[in-house]
Amino acid sequence: MTAVETGTIEGAGPEQLVRVPLGSRSYDILIGPGLIARAGGEITARLKGRRAAVITDANVGPLYLEALTDSLQTDGIESVSLTLPAGEKTKNFENLIAVVDLALTARLERNDMIIALGGGVIGDLAGFAAGIVKRGIRFVQIPTSLLAQVDSSVGGKTGINTRHGKNLVGVFHQPDLVLADADALGTLSEREFRAGYAEVAKYGLIDKPDFFAWLEKNRADVFAGGPARIEAIAASCRAKAAVVAADERENGARALLNLGHTFGHALEAAVQYDSARLVHGEGVAIGMVLAHEFSTRLNLASRDDADRVRKHLKEAGLPVSIGEIPGDLPPAEGLMEAIAQDKKVKSGKLTFILTRGVGQSFVADDVPSSEVLSFLREKYPQ
Amino acid sequence: MTAVETGTIEGAGPEQLVRVPLGSRSYDILIGPGLIARAGGEITARLKGRRAAVITDANVGPLYLEALTDSLQTDGIESVSLTLPAGEKTKNFENLIAVVDLALTARLERNDMIIALGGGVIGDLAGFAAGIVKRGIRFVQIPTSLLAQVDSSVGGKTGINTRHGKNLVGVFHQPDLVLADADALGTLSEREFRAGYAEVAKYGLIDKPDFFAWLEKNRADVFAGGPARIEAIAASCRAKAAVVAADERENGARALLNLGHTFGHALEAAVQYDSARLVHGEGVAIGMVLAHEFSTRLNLASRDDADRVRKHLKEAGLPVSIGEIPGDLPPAEGLMEAIAQDKKVKSGKLTFILTRGVGQSFVADDVPSSEVLSFLREKYPQ
Ligand SMILES: NC(=O)c1ccc[n+]([C@@H]2O[C@H](COP(=O)([O-])OP(=O)(O)OC[C@H]3O[C@@H](n4cnc5c(N)ncnc54)[C@H](O)[C@@H]3O)[C@@H](O)[C@H]2O)c1
Ligand SMILES: NC(=O)c1ccc[n+]([C@@H]2O[C@H](COP(=O)([O-])OP(=O)(O)OC[C@H]3O[C@@H](n4cnc5c(N)ncnc54)[C@H](O)[C@@H]3O)[C@@H](O)[C@H]2O)c1
Ligand SMILES: [Zn+2]
Ligand SMILES: [Zn+2]
Repeated sequence: MTAVETGTIEGAGPEQLVRVPLGSRSYDILIGPGLIARAGGEITARLKGRRAAVITDANVGPLYLEALTDSLQTDGIESVSLTLPAGEKTKNFENLIAVVDLALTARLERNDMIIALGGGVIGDLAGFAAGIVKRGIRFVQIPTSLLAQVDSSVGGKTGINTRHGKNLVGVFHQPDLVLADADALGTLSEREFRAGYAEVAKYGLIDKPDFFAWLEKNRADVFAGGPARIEAIAASCRAKAAVVAADERENGARALLNLGHTFGHALEAAVQYDSARLVHGEGVAIGMVLAHEFSTRLNLASRDDADRVRKHLKEAGLPVSIGEIPGDLPPAEGLMEAIAQDKKVKSGKLTFILTRGVGQSFVADDVPSSEVLSFLREKYPQ
Repeated sequence: MTAVETGTIEGAGPEQLVRVPLGSRSYDILIGPGLIARAGGEITARLKGRRAAVITDANVGPLYLEALTDSLQTDGIESVSLTLPAGEKTKNFENLIAVVDLALTARLERNDMIIALGGGVIGDLAGFAAGIVKRGIRFVQIPTSLLAQVDSSVGGKTGINTRHGKNLVGVFHQPDLVLADADALGTLSEREFRAGYAEVAKYGLIDKPDFFAWLEKNRADVFAGGPARIEAIAASCRAKAAVVAADERENGARALLNLGHTFGHALEAAVQYDSARLVHGEGVAIGMVLAHEFSTRLNLASRDDADRVRKHLKEAGLPVSIGEIPGDLPPAEGLMEAIAQDKKVKSGKLTFILTRGVGQSFVADDVPSSEVLSFLREKYPQ
């Protein structure tokens, strides 16, 4: 953490390693340039299996699949691959079965691996398959979106969506290795990059005020690429790894990772998950601003802190208010209902991530839903 | 274990409790009469959830579903249910999705439960669903076949079959409670009861010579029902629980549970899993006799021990030789191929459960496949 704590990236090499300490399930996250092209070597240095099924999507596959399978082959890993359609809808039972079938047809054994090459969608789906083939085979994440590199590829949550909602079916299955190739982000759309950046900022806002301050200074460099970007990704992975190590199965501390997500999920639901209108990270950006403003309203945080958060995310090109979402929205009561469904209201009280200021978030389990509703009414575009 | 160790069942109450010690995943197995009709009370005494999805099959449902749901209702547990076709073919993705959908439609939360009411087929399928709904909800096993009571309901292995083979997809998901209602076995066919009995005898043959001797004396009582049956089930559960506690995820000691299963699986495959010709427990019975005879051939065990095993299983009405399987079988080479596929031959060597005599099994990882083949040729009906 030195680089982050001193607010400088001097001395940080081009490649960083973050170890996720989970006993016998511990694993390495490598963050650096050119990792896809040398994936084979990184894998064979750490894992025994010499067979792999690579899962990717129709955007990422044409860009990186060949470089990956070439590298695997060079290092003696035989692979088969499956390219699925891009997008959230891909996370379904049908594709899960297709991935499982591919792995079984390739006769993968426990030590062999499924490799996810893509964003969080591919990671969640392929990880779920790796968790159930032969009751768990090896799993390598090669996240190619910023969101996947800083969030979804770390922590072992996998899953698919059903008609009942998102991520309602899945398993905890930790990866055995994560290779975050910073170069791959070069082909990611600006909008997806910004969306991932919301989650980067989130780690600062949860409990790393120095990291948030570092981001305020280095945002432009992070967006430009190079060592600042690698540092931001590594710091994010360290932050998430620490939370996951403390609470692998999400019974307590892991809840803090939902900062901004209660409002964010409600907004995503309000636009029916139409990514043309709002992607997850944008919902989180607005949600984090709302969480800080709501904390201000409850006299927990200062207005200055809320303004600081809003300013930084706005400068990063992220939406910071409900009014910026294009198209019609349901009334505040509709949002409130979505929140209540997400969170299970207990006698009028909600569990919520609140904050006492930048980097001082906490879990509050007694937030009156009436307070949330009147706050939302105020925040609504008139 | 007193009753078993002294070779008597005096003093054993009608109900027995076996605790499976797995840290935070520890659970109770209750074995006794009338448990289905008081399932609600046993569940509410131990688990927090008050909602359940009950999964059963078309043979068991008509016999016991109403008694179960009545009891759940009496104790304040709301339930929905799904009755699936009976038989091994039910363990597929389609039914897995149906169970998951039922649980999500019923809005089950982490503390709510899926209840399996049936044999190993229903237990394996419902347990898999419980393991993936919301990344794991509570799971209660109410096994109604002898095989399920002494084997499949204990240990947390769940799964389904695919076109690539049996049990190739699944998760480890321990139950939170097992209620083995000994009365329910009253409606089980003789043949299914005998098949389950093969697994009971297996625990004696693995490492409990006293239990095997007790079975030799008490076999008729175990088949007749009453306290001897409950004792046999409880002793089996204790045996399996001990192995599972030592090796939850099947990396070592748990392999001993496969005594008789290498030959058994090959025979099941040889009849294409046609249960009219051979059910699993029958294959295991023949397999255990073969494992002892093969150990004799390798000068590991005495001929007397092999004869003792054969005699006991025969008296129990189980088949004890390949020739007893009705219909044509592939030649010995065909069986050998099935064994090699099941076990992965490493440079001509197989891993096999061998024995030095009754209750003295061990894992051998260097059995020459040529020895197995010439043994099989001898054992083949001419
Ligand atoms: N498991 C977890 O802990 C966790 C955490 C957060 C989010 N998630 C899940 O992650 C998913 C969102 O992840 P995401 O934002 O990466 O979505 P995504 O996988 O859909 O990727 C976003 C888009 O970017 C494209 N893309 C990815 N990498 C690219 C690259 N290098 N070049 C060009 N295009 C590229 C993809 O094809 C896709 O169109 C959601 O399903 C969410 O539920 C999971
Ligand atoms: N998970 C594990 O550790 C494990 C271990 C061993 C076997 N298994 C699995 O268990 C399955 C075999 O279990 P099984 O033998 O119980 O098969 P099963 O569930 O098919 O039951 C056998 C037959 O008995 C009927 N039946 C069950 N209880 C009855 C009752 N009380 N009255 C009348 N009929 C009843 C069933 O409807 C079925 O027709 C296989 O799929 C096998 O893979 C799993
Ligand atoms: Zn998020
Ligand atoms: Zn068996």
